Formats: sequence, C-alpha cells, structure tokens
Amino acid sequence: MVTLPLPNRICIVGLGVMGASLALALRERGYTGHLTGVSRTLATRDTALGRRMVDAATIDLAEGVRAAELVVLATPVRLLIEQIGQCATSCADEAIITDMGSTKAAIVTAMDALPERLCAVGGHPMCGKETAGIDAADAGLYVGAPWILTRSARSTDPAYAKVRALAEFVGARPRDLAVATHDPLLAYASHLPYALSVALVTATAGFGQANPAVWEIMAGGFRDTSRVAASDVTMWTDILLTNPGPVSDALDDAQRAIDTLRGLIERQDAAGLADFLARAASARRNRYSR
Amino acid sequence: MVTLPLPNRICIVGLGVMGASLALALRERGYTGHLTGVSRTLATRDTALGRRMVDAATIDLAEGVRAAELVVLATPVRLLIEQIGQCATSCADEAIITDMGSTKAAIVTAMDALPERLCAVGGHPMCGKETAGIDAADAGLYVGAPWILTRSARSTDPAYAKVRALAEFVGARPRDLAVATHDPLLAYASHLPYALSVALVTATAGFGQANPAVWEIMAGGFRDTSRVAASDVTMWTDILLTNPGPVSDALDDAQRAIDTLRGLIERQDAAGLADFLARAASARRNRYSR
Repeated sequence: MVTLPLPNRICIVGLGVMGASLALALRERGYTGHLTGVSRTLATRDTALGRRMVDAATIDLAEGVRAAELVVLATPVRLLIEQIGQCATSCADEAIITDMGSTKAAIVTAMDALPERLCAVGGHPMCGKETAGIDAADAGLYVGAPWILTRSARSTDPAYAKVRALAEFVGARPRDLAVATHDPLLAYASHLPYALSVALVTATAGFGQANPAVWEIMAGGFRDTSRVAASDVTMWTDILLTNPGPVSDALDDAQRAIDTLRGLIERQDAAGLADFLARAASARRNRYSR
Repeated sequence: MVTLPLPNRICIVGLGVMGASLALALRERGYTGHLTGVSRTLATRDTALGRRMVDAATIDLAEGVRAAELVVLATPVRLLIEQIGQCATSCADEAIITDMGSTKAAIVTAMDALPERLCAVGGHPMCGKETAGIDAADAGLYVGAPWILTRSARSTDPAYAKVRALAEFVGARPRDLAVATHDPLLAYASHLPYALSVALVTATAGFGQANPAVWEIMAGGFRDTSRVAASDVTMWTDILLTNPGPVSDALDDAQRAIDTLRGLIERQDAAGLADFLARAASARRNRYSR
C-alpha cells in the first residue's frame, strides 16, 4: 500500500494514553518529521521529553500548535472542543486539525466554525486502554484498529488524505463515516456497553454494601461485563455528555430488553425466555464473533 | 493438604462441558475408582466411552446411578431437579448426591425431600465455558475456581466432607455458603452480568437491523460486555427461572442505575455524572481487580 508522506511538523495535543501512544507509534514506525507534544501538566511534559517521545513539548497550546502542519487533538471531548476554538487563532494558515474524540457531532460542529484558512477532519481511532495516562502508552495500540474519519465543512480532499495517511502510518484501518451516522452507531457499539457495565457495577456495589461476600464469588461473567466500567472517567463523562440523544435511545432499548427479560422470568415462560436468550446468543455468535 | 479418599464409584449425570470436564479432571489427577457417565444422547455416550473419559456410560439414569456411592448431577437446573427425584428411587442406600447447578434454593429444596437413606449436598463450581458440550471439555476447568457447597437437610458431615474432597481433588477452592445467601449473591455476581449482556446484544441487534454497520465498528467494550451473552441458552434459561426473586431485585437495581445515568446526561450534569462514573470505576478497580 502506498501512503502519502506525513506532514513534516505534527503536534499532538494531549499526552494521555491515546496521544502518547500515537507519538510512540510514529517514532517506532520511522516518522522523521518534527513532533511536538502539548500536555496539561509539567510532569507529563517532562516525561514525554525524558523518554524522547516527542522532539519538543509544552503546556502552552498556542505555542505548541503554532508551527504545526498537522494538529492531532487527543484530549477528552469537551476540552477538545474548546481547543478547536483555540486552534482557530493559534494555528498557522493551512494547518490541518484532526482529533481522536469518541463522539463526532459536537466536535465536527466546532470544526465547521473554524476559519477558512484552516482545514479540519474528524477522527476516531477505535481502541483504548482501561489504564489512562502517559505511562500506559503503547506503540502498538493502533495496529489493526478501525480509525473512523468524518468530514467537516473544513475537510478538503488533500487534508482528508493526510489524516488518512496518519491512521495508516500507525497501522490502523481508516474508515469513512458521516458525522450523522457516527454518533448513533457508537451509542450502541461503545457507549451502551460502557453504560451497562457502569450500571452493573453500581448495582453490585450497592448490594455489596450489606453483602460484601458478593465480591469474593465473582466469576468470568462479572469480570468481562464489568471490565470497561474501570475506564477513564473524564473521557467517558465527556463522551456521554456530547452524545445525549443517541445514548438515551440506546439506554431506552436496553431497558426495554430488561423489561422483557423480567416479564418472561416472572411469568416463568420457559419457551419464551429460551427464545429471547437464543436470539441474543445467536447475534453475539454470528454477527460479532471476536 | 490432606484430603479424604474419594468414593470408589462415582457417577456423573450430564456429560456437557461441566460434567465431561469433571471426568477428565478426575482421570488426569489420578482418580482410580470406577467412573460412570450418564448422557442424554447416544452420541455423547459413545464419545465419552471412545475417549475413555469414563469406565461406563449409559443414557439411562436409573442404570447409571444404581451402584454409585457419589452421584454428581451436572445438567441444567430444572432437569437436575427432576433427576434428584429420580435418584430418590434409583440410588443405593447411603449414596451421596451432589450437583453443579448455578442456583441453589430450588435444588436444595428438592434435596431436602429425599428419603433419609440418602445424603445430599448442594454444589456450585463457579466456572464454565461459553462453548457447551462434551467437545469443549477441559481437564483444567476447575483449577482455582471457587466451588460453593450448600448444606441440605440431607447433608451429613461425612457426606459434606466427601463432596468437599471431590472439589479439592480437581483443584477447586471449596467455599461454604448457606442456601439462603447463595442465590441473592449469585443474582448480582453472575446472573445480572449475563442479563445485562443479553440486554446489550438485544438492543444492538435491534438497532443493527436498520444499521448493520454497527457490527463493523465494535471495539473492546462491546466485545467484553457482550461475551457472556453467547453462553449456553438452556443452562441460562433454567438459572433465571429458578432464581426469579433475586434476579428481579438485581434487574431493578440496574434499571435504577440506568435511570440515574440517563438523568445526569439529560441534565448535562458534568460534575454529578463524573462522580457517578468515578464510583463505579473505583468499585471495579478496588473491590474487584481481576
């Protein structure tokens, strides 16, 4: 596969696990341009420099993005939206802005409002780790992961191609998705699993206050179903707040499924219950088999 | 650790993944007594014999249990309850009956009704596989797994000790739990994770009918949270039907948590949402860290 050369000056804003993993992946795969990191804290800045993840690092966004040809915003969604506004004044002409946010409607709306001298393409690499922070950075994080690209009013074809090249460079699989499609799909594919995992842990923690033995008899079902509830809270707060309609729809659907399940159990409807469970088992096995 | 010698004649009723794994584990760990298997189908009987998992096999429960000193019922819960009744007439005097069912109230009630010439101890090894059937048998399935023991009115101390020895022999960790405690604990530790996993897949499958692309952008959260929904439907139908009260309570708690989550998102209450998510993340990380 032939990919475009990457821009010579890339700035990654946010050196948590996503941004720092991107820096490591660029380095490991031989990116030869200049890499700048913008972090929130001095400690992260110093870690990034100390480990030579980046060529330069700062806690000042305006300073970090000033000379960048490509700015990658890798911060929680609501902060990211503020930073798009800051890029409007701080970025050089023709700079390309992309992001790694897990919702796209609010972000692309902010991109649409950027001045015409800038380009912007929404991005969403579909991977992550439960462990947050620069210390969890992993050069292989993006390998094989879908990396969704969504066009904004500021997406030119060359800008889109360069963001796509970035995703390919670190081993991800770029996939185009319209912004109007992205957030509802993600509500079911990602946000609902998280919300139900949180509901499970919340219910169990409440029960566990009077029945602490519950924590000692957990088996694989709880382990797997609750795993994502341990993920980064700031990231998830922003995701849920910026996708309220689709998430609410997905929660409604899940509650209807729970109501159906409860009714079948209360009526002791063995045939109906078996059929309901078999449909779910079949969908999990046949439609999604990882 | 010194364990009691196992009974000389053990009969395993049900040669699915649980029963067949027990047979393999007994063999691998050097059980020298006579092992009988009772299966539902001739095909499974022949597989068990062909692979020398057991010394004798039959599809006739009465024939299989007749000479057994220890009968291990490893079938779905509602069938298992019927089989306890069959043991009442078919087992030899002083035979010990135990089981591997995931709920205990209905099973122990059936054990309580056994004639006094028999002994019975409820059992629940907390392990399993998504793949059902004899072909998924795994000699290491019980290693390190909690194996809950619950006393019935037919539990003598010597019978209890022998069932405990069986669990220890195959590498499990026996743990005593009163029947009144078992089912509510399991409703949260195991049945609720499964129910929410089914609700997730049901909701997603419904959305996916008009939006099939949802299946192509799944990441780790969906994979983990939905995994247990693919488990054996017959087993789960029986579990849910025999634990209706506690499961309903657990579903209520989960729906309340979902309601709270939806309200926080609708009100765009960032601080409240972050706090709610942080409590769940903390419980998952600190109370349960596997």
